[in-house]
Amino acid sequence: MRAVRFHGKEDIRLDEVEEPVCGIGQVKIRPAFIGICGSDIHEYLSGPSAVPVTPHPITGGTLPTVLGHEFSGTVEEIGEGVISLQVGDKVAVRPNLSDGSCPRCTMGRFNICNNLGFIGYSGDAGGMSDHVVVDKKHAIKLPNSIPLDTGALVEPLTVAWHAVSRSPLQVGDTALVVGAGPIGLAIVQVLKARGIQTIIVVEISEQRRKSAQLFGASHTLDPKEVDAVAKVQEIAGHLQGVSVSFETSGAQAGLDTALAGLRARGTMVIVSLWEEKPTINAFPDIVLGEKHVTGAAVFDDGDFEAVIEAIASGESGSLKSSIKPSFIVPHHFPLPQARFSHDQ
Amino acid sequence: MRAVRFHGKEDIRLDEVEEPVCGIGQVKIRPAFIGICGSDIHEYLSGPSAVPVTPHPITGGTLPTVLGHEFSGTVEEIGEGVISLQVGDKVAVRPNLSDGSCPRCTMGRFNICNNLGFIGYSGDAGGMSDHVVVDKKHAIKLPNSIPLDTGALVEPLTVAWHAVSRSPLQVGDTALVVGAGPIGLAIVQVLKARGIQTIIVVEISEQRRKSAQLFGASHTLDPKEVDAVAKVQEIAGHLQGVSVSFETSGAQAGLDTALAGLRARGTMVIVSLWEEKPTINAFPDIVLGEKHVTGAAVFDDGDFEAVIEAIASGESGSLKSSIKPSFIVPHHFPLPQARFSHDQ
Repeated sequence: MRAVRFHGKEDIRLDEVEEPVCGIGQVKIRPAFIGICGSDIHEYLSGPSAVPVTPHPITGGTLPTVLGHEFSGTVEEIGEGVISLQVGDKVAVRPNLSDGSCPRCTMGRFNICNNLGFIGYSGDAGGMSDHVVVDKKHAIKLPNSIPLDTGALVEPLTVAWHAVSRSPLQVGDTALVVGAGPIGLAIVQVLKARGIQTIIVVEISEQRRKSAQLFGASHTLDPKEVDAVAKVQEIAGHLQGVSVSFETSGAQAGLDTALAGLRARGTMVIVSLWEEKPTINAFPDIVLGEKHVTGAAVFDDGDFEAVIEAIASGESGSLKSSIKPSFIVPHHFPLPQARFSHDQ
Repeated sequence: MRAVRFHGKEDIRLDEVEEPVCGIGQVKIRPAFIGICGSDIHEYLSGPSAVPVTPHPITGGTLPTVLGHEFSGTVEEIGEGVISLQVGDKVAVRPNLSDGSCPRCTMGRFNICNNLGFIGYSGDAGGMSDHVVVDKKHAIKLPNSIPLDTGALVEPLTVAWHAVSRSPLQVGDTALVVGAGPIGLAIVQVLKARGIQTIIVVEISEQRRKSAQLFGASHTLDPKEVDAVAKVQEIAGHLQGVSVSFETSGAQAGLDTALAGLRARGTMVIVSLWEEKPTINAFPDIVLGEKHVTGAAVFDDGDFEAVIEAIASGESGSLKSSIKPSFIVPHHFPLPQARFSHDQ
């Protein structure tokens, strides 16, 4: 069968590989739609980073590994002992792999397992292939109301869902999202679904600002045109800053804005990847502002199901508000048309 | 009367000034013991910073201002309308001044008022003088069991008390204190009083490590001799890091240790002053470790009284454990013997 594999920095190939066998407690899936994540681009440009160069403790897999961790598909075979799924079921795949026994897993933090792995990075299983076999717990059934293209967006939406869950946001609070790439836009959607009305987006790209407006941002700011921090403080009104900010840009200026835009004791959640350490305004912002900084990685158990429920039912938690993941995905292409630099 | 005043960077003088008048709702205090704070040294070496160069919004005072914000004394006169204090009462002085009307005060965050001022920085009132007049709410009565020298230590102990209160520490948790200057040592005392048993101190000075042991540290580490982070993780055991760390060193290496020494989702409280922005390990520590960073400034309303109660009664909160502020204060000297660089 065909599989898109990562062989090393700037080296991704469409390979012919052996078709996987569906074992006990597993399901074989025919992938339908697969997203290309920002972390795939990080991997391509400066990896291997998520891809293991020695056998992964959970999968045993190593370079080259199959890519694709944001995907939906149809169950085409079920292994012995699988009763919760049937052939023909539509599923979204929860890609994170944890060993279940490290200190972090013992604390219930499977999302940040010391041996964290991913379907789509850590072995022979990945969405960018004709067939993929996963343990049944990774195949989350999609209701009929969610089409397969939307199903592929459950994963990035769940990253956003988890980031918002990691913050102390409550209805009535104000939020700032710095960066409106796919994760920033997904956060805007989740904030909207959770009942947040003041959602300010700071983003340099005009197209992304427009997307943010479509997705529910109450205000969008171009930091090249306005003093973004001053404007955020003005919009936030009396408290002189937002309750919570989400840093999704991965840029020093973005982090500075997300921290400075907070009110006293506000919380910045960092969701972005960093190859270098940024500086942080410890004094006065953190000490005299008593501001909080934290991070969000992947998703907790249950988040995947909660997002699917929120998309399907139009209810997120106690709120009657739906997530409509009408992401702007600029390009769709089938596997055989994939083109990589080494083909040229 | 005599008053030690800050005139500018490296310029502190023992001046002759007019004796203050005790007005309505005020008390006149004869200062007894006055601490020299780390922030006084920051001010001397690189100020004016806390000292206002234009009239302070609350006091109206400006350079030169009277120093001394960690002090005890005896009430020598009470103004009209003061019924809670009498002449002869021993008091500790709560030095922070807030305007009560800024957005932060409106949120109850008087400690980080936008116009934050201090008795001892912001005007004619300061502990390093023969007499000082303060509004009655700033004179906190000391019980008979607390002597005046201990009374002067209430202020730094309250800074530590507030820093610990800002963390999510609970009995059974582990703590790391980076830096064992007066605030680091005060934090060790407060942690001990709150029932924390594993208190690890990282400090380069041997004398300070010894003090930390006397004050209740369970482990002290010299980062020049051992890999402090590896050792902290080893002591913390199964969770591979402490629940909460306190950064009091104001040094990049200290902050790095305080963050790296945390378990997943642990909290670092920054209490130190920074003249430059430090770098921070956003990835992986904050994002993939989902660690928390926050800061603590001054103290909340009620903290001063809680510390006095904890010293006097031997009870801190629900815990039967006393704070014994037997600080190592290496030098005591009376006001007329004060020597400043401009005298030489």
